[in-house]
Amino acid sequence: MKIGFIGLGIMGRPMALHLKNGGHELVVPERASLTGEIRAAAKVVPNAKAVAAESEVVILMVPDTPDVAAVLFGPGGAAQGLRPGSLVIDMSSISPIETKEFAAKISEKGCDYVDAPVSGGEVGAKNAALTIMVGGTEAAFNRAKPLFDLMGKNITHVGEVGAGQVCKVANQIIVALNIQAVSEALVFASRAGADPAKVRQAISGGFASSRILELHAERMINGTFNPGFKINLHQKDLNLALSSAKALGLALPNTAVVQQMFSACVAHGHGELDHSAMIMAIEGLGNHDIRKNKK
Amino acid sequence: MKIGFIGLGIMGRPMALHLKNGGHELVVPERASLTGEIRAAAKVVPNAKAVAAESEVVILMVPDTPDVAAVLFGPGGAAQGLRPGSLVIDMSSISPIETKEFAAKISEKGCDYVDAPVSGGEVGAKNAALTIMVGGTEAAFNRAKPLFDLMGKNITHVGEVGAGQVCKVANQIIVALNIQAVSEALVFASRAGADPAKVRQAISGGFASSRILELHAERMINGTFNPGFKINLHQKDLNLALSSAKALGLALPNTAVVQQMFSACVAHGHGELDHSAMIMAIEGLGNHDIRKNKK
Repeated sequence: MKIGFIGLGIMGRPMALHLKNGGHELVVPERASLTGEIRAAAKVVPNAKAVAAESEVVILMVPDTPDVAAVLFGPGGAAQGLRPGSLVIDMSSISPIETKEFAAKISEKGCDYVDAPVSGGEVGAKNAALTIMVGGTEAAFNRAKPLFDLMGKNITHVGEVGAGQVCKVANQIIVALNIQAVSEALVFASRAGADPAKVRQAISGGFASSRILELHAERMINGTFNPGFKINLHQKDLNLALSSAKALGLALPNTAVVQQMFSACVAHGHGELDHSAMIMAIEGLGNHDIRKNKK
Repeated sequence: MKIGFIGLGIMGRPMALHLKNGGHELVVPERASLTGEIRAAAKVVPNAKAVAAESEVVILMVPDTPDVAAVLFGPGGAAQGLRPGSLVIDMSSISPIETKEFAAKISEKGCDYVDAPVSGGEVGAKNAALTIMVGGTEAAFNRAKPLFDLMGKNITHVGEVGAGQVCKVANQIIVALNIQAVSEALVFASRAGADPAKVRQAISGGFASSRILELHAERMINGTFNPGFKINLHQKDLNLALSSAKALGLALPNTAVVQQMFSACVAHGHGELDHSAMIMAIEGLGNHDIRKNKK
């Protein structure tokens, strides 16, 4: 099958190559940043419109909501080239609400739309072990499923268009709040005179157990905050959660607090560190530095 | 060995009986609430002082900090009866800070003191499968260890006196905040039109995975909130966390928010429900009922 792939960054590159190795043909838009490996594996055309014109399926893997809007509906965008009957699969992590608008516009072109954000990071992408959360019709999901099987392992059809993005946001809320949970508990333990490593060991088998307590607590205890998943990216995801919640008329108090903790980390220059470095925001609460701006 | 056991409630009864079945003699203080099974298994004496006078080891399993203070230092309290060389083991979940004060006073009597709060609930107590978090000297821990082995499975010597209670508080912080995390995520998913059960299934294998997502999310989705662990008790534990944090000069922002969520549940008459019922506080945010008090 001819597959257009737009967004060949750290995640997109290995995902596209798995499709190629699965026997598909790749079409990609020209970018100065395309690697030699991708140029060798794919046909390179001028822009997203040209990608769409040549492809049965167009996959997007770009950073944020405005990037998806630009790739689909901007000048030289995919929507101008799409042939009726084509399938658009957006694997980016973007707004669930705007996803529904994008899908409606793509539907007007006689095409299917599936939102299919992933989790599992660069390692999951390289090992074709991504978790893929899918929104769309049953028919569109079944059409995309063989491609997902080449890129991921835990593939769930969550519901109608937008449900994949909703699911990804829910996932990012839990991960962030679980990091905050472990941060508050370990800072408390440490300030109260206990060894955080011993505390983690003691509680790991019980109701407090989580993947975050397993992996991120160890990073916190060792102070090794190389990413991993960057605070800047997780903050983007929580902004998505809070703006969507606002649109839905819903309050998410702890998500809002955690977003502020991430903001504190960014403000102190820690945005490129792993999200487990959020513990520094809890450790720093109560420090006094407004005197810096006193003349 | 002759073991005094004070606090024969839902947790204490099976724990004491495991010690009896392990070949030890039990001494307990008279209470109208003592069950026939306990009366048959133990020697019943008038009060905590008499228990201490007859025992090598005195175990406490009572509800809260003031209860431990009363049992040890109140009228007819254990401290009056303790023989030099005895060991006091407090398995209640109480203040880590007051624990240090209690231990110091017991030490003046020439006795050892170990704090050893548990998690695992009634089921863990019945199955001798409790997680036990221990604070005290190495020697005192080693002395208590054979008794812990009769009551629990995951037994960790966390540190000096108080460290067991610190660890338990850390555990309760994580459990509460993970419940909040799953609550916010599932309410978000539901309001955004996705099926929470599908969302839970989709994210269960990844970084969002936790014991709370496994067990409590299912209760939330089914709306079955029979305890389990009651909101009233968890709220007590978070009060302990926040009062200890205050004494330590430490801010725990999300713990404070979650305590308020538990307060909202209690205010609506849900204090006796399972702590997973906290999701109702998130669902109810934005409801308007101050008009009730308008004349």
